[in-house]
Amino acid sequence: MRDARITLVTLGVSDLQRASAFYEALGWTRTQAGNESVVFLQGEGLVLSLFGLADLAKDAGLTAEPLPAFRGVTLAINLPSEAETDRLFDTALGAGATAVKRPEKVFWGGYSGYFADPDGHLWELAHNPFFAMDERGLLDLDPARPETAS
Amino acid sequence: MRDARITLVTLGVSDLQRASAFYEALGWTRTQAGNESVVFLQGEGLVLSLFGLADLAKDAGLTAEPLPAFRGVTLAINLPSEAETDRLFDTALGAGATAVKRPEKVFWGGYSGYFADPDGHLWELAHNPFFAMDERGLLDLDPARPETAS
Repeated sequence: MRDARITLVTLGVSDLQRASAFYEALGWTRTQAGNESVVFLQGEGLVLSLFGLADLAKDAGLTAEPLPAFRGVTLAINLPSEAETDRLFDTALGAGATAVKRPEKVFWGGYSGYFADPDGHLWELAHNPFFAMDERGLLDLDPARPETAS
Repeated sequence: MRDARITLVTLGVSDLQRASAFYEALGWTRTQAGNESVVFLQGEGLVLSLFGLADLAKDAGLTAEPLPAFRGVTLAINLPSEAETDRLFDTALGAGATAVKRPEKVFWGGYSGYFADPDGHLWELAHNPFFAMDERGLLDLDPARPETAS
């Protein structure tokens, strides 16, 4: 088992039910694993966890100061085409996201846009014609590495 | 292909080589896909991308304000035991991380700690005896879902 994994990404949110509904509308599966203070949504090989913003800070022993629009972290979903990128972007807007940058052709030869979720977390949707995706839609940029390397 | 994926997590960093060396020390594989302004590190089913903090903000069309210690997002790695959690925590400290909360037994019955990477990004290392991991070390909290659901 490699240490180089992200098993779970946790987003601090102000309204757990609103945030969960948003991600369910984007295709994430809400699981039974949560409780009144945390929601776990299963994605492809990764769990998205939603937790009260103040509680998340407290869990790490930090203070939940007001967050800037840009938080130094973006989450990305690579899509197999420009049309698929537009489709998911519009789905996100329909579910309550804010358009930060509509998908457009970008200098590196791809197609990319950003939306903010209802709590301001930034997601990039991108089609990168130079990145191969496996059948699950996940990236492998190191094809030399055996799939089941330990 | 499900939309519910995170193909890539991008962290804004102040020193690309320092940040890359940190994650390589934690087991991530630096790939050939990057260039002088971006590093792509392959992990299990997910790419960790490192990008200049100001450039990342600019890419989204936002301003890189000073970031608070708590940014409303945490990345987590679930480990198969308390001892493995301690081991990876110490590896991170040895590679230049700051201990935010040493792993300890927590109220929900697991064992969890936080470190900050050299740019202040928060990682949780946790052993959760109630979460099953697959052979790759990834979580599946929705076992009813077929592995290859489209």
